[in-house]
Amino acid sequence: MLLRAAAEVFDERGYDSASTTEILERSGLTRGALYHHFPSKEAIAVALLTTHRDALEVPSQSTKVQAVIDLTFAFAFQLQRDPMLRACVRLAVEQSSLRDSAVTPYQQASKAIRELLVQAKEQGELLPGVDLLEAAEMINGTFTGIQVMSRVQTDREDLPQRVSIMWRFLLPGLVSPGMIGHLRTTPAPQQTDTSAR
Amino acid sequence: MLLRAAAEVFDERGYDSASTTEILERSGLTRGALYHHFPSKEAIAVALLTTHRDALEVPSQSTKVQAVIDLTFAFAFQLQRDPMLRACVRLAVEQSSLRDSAVTPYQQASKAIRELLVQAKEQGELLPGVDLLEAAEMINGTFTGIQVMSRVQTDREDLPQRVSIMWRFLLPGLVSPGMIGHLRTTPAPQQTDTSAR
Repeated sequence: MLLRAAAEVFDERGYDSASTTEILERSGLTRGALYHHFPSKEAIAVALLTTHRDALEVPSQSTKVQAVIDLTFAFAFQLQRDPMLRACVRLAVEQSSLRDSAVTPYQQASKAIRELLVQAKEQGELLPGVDLLEAAEMINGTFTGIQVMSRVQTDREDLPQRVSIMWRFLLPGLVSPGMIGHLRTTPAPQQTDTSAR
Repeated sequence: MLLRAAAEVFDERGYDSASTTEILERSGLTRGALYHHFPSKEAIAVALLTTHRDALEVPSQSTKVQAVIDLTFAFAFQLQRDPMLRACVRLAVEQSSLRDSAVTPYQQASKAIRELLVQAKEQGELLPGVDLLEAAEMINGTFTGIQVMSRVQTDREDLPQRVSIMWRFLLPGLVSPGMIGHLRTTPAPQQTDTSAR
């Protein structure tokens, strides 16, 4: 599959060092077939970046802050095992000739988080005065940096633990004091099972 | 100056795409003079990464959490104008053949923050039960991600505002409730002056 092959090459080399020749070799496609669908390396990267959205599927939870927490754990576990998502994140984090398109994953993630926070606010889960846009960007930015540090230091092995710590520090500035005791800042049992598969 | 020339090339191209030939051209050195000091591209990068420490000079403040806050603002302003620091950060954030050395800046930053937090704890500024190691890594990770998002979206122009927002969200999980009103989550006046120079 082309995007899977492209993801592996982008994940290993970064955008500027990746070559369409290597992507072709891994995918088994001919150059003609590739260019029929994607006129350039950039077009492949842009298509790959839209798949980032799939990793933001929202777990169903009556408590909406819990849904945001579970979203970050699900994303963390998927990053550990899915080269497509790792490639998206690498393309989004690193400076390259792929400029404006790198913004897409951040916008998608902030939007998904903001929509959940809107519902959380309606349900009275948040501290009064929390700016939802700022909170969504803060959660998104914190996760971004934490996964970078986890990759550098442990190849993302300790990412779930770091996400737990992130929520313990963020919740007091985000949710009503009465909520904190009702929120789980560890992965849901089924999330841990999935990661061990 | 060699490290300055190298920083510009690393800042623009990233580690793997940077060539010693381009670094030589910008520095005006001969290849012999370069190799006398630095036997390889990696040796140049490692030397550059140690300069990251200079950006962690600690502002003098009787309130130690304020010193940590001011440190992050000083770092943010320096990132906006100093290609040496930008190159360090790029080398630390991006995946490249420069592996273990990329950990150095994170270790230096976490250590500088942790030392201030130890004093903050002694002075009763922190919430009881805050783990200093976790808190230092959390502040470090949050800043890392926030500067990545600010670079992608505004070429770091809105970084100081994002640092303000970061502290408003982090302080309730970090400091004693009575402290929050006494902490400034905006740059010190002299910091803003410096950035406008």
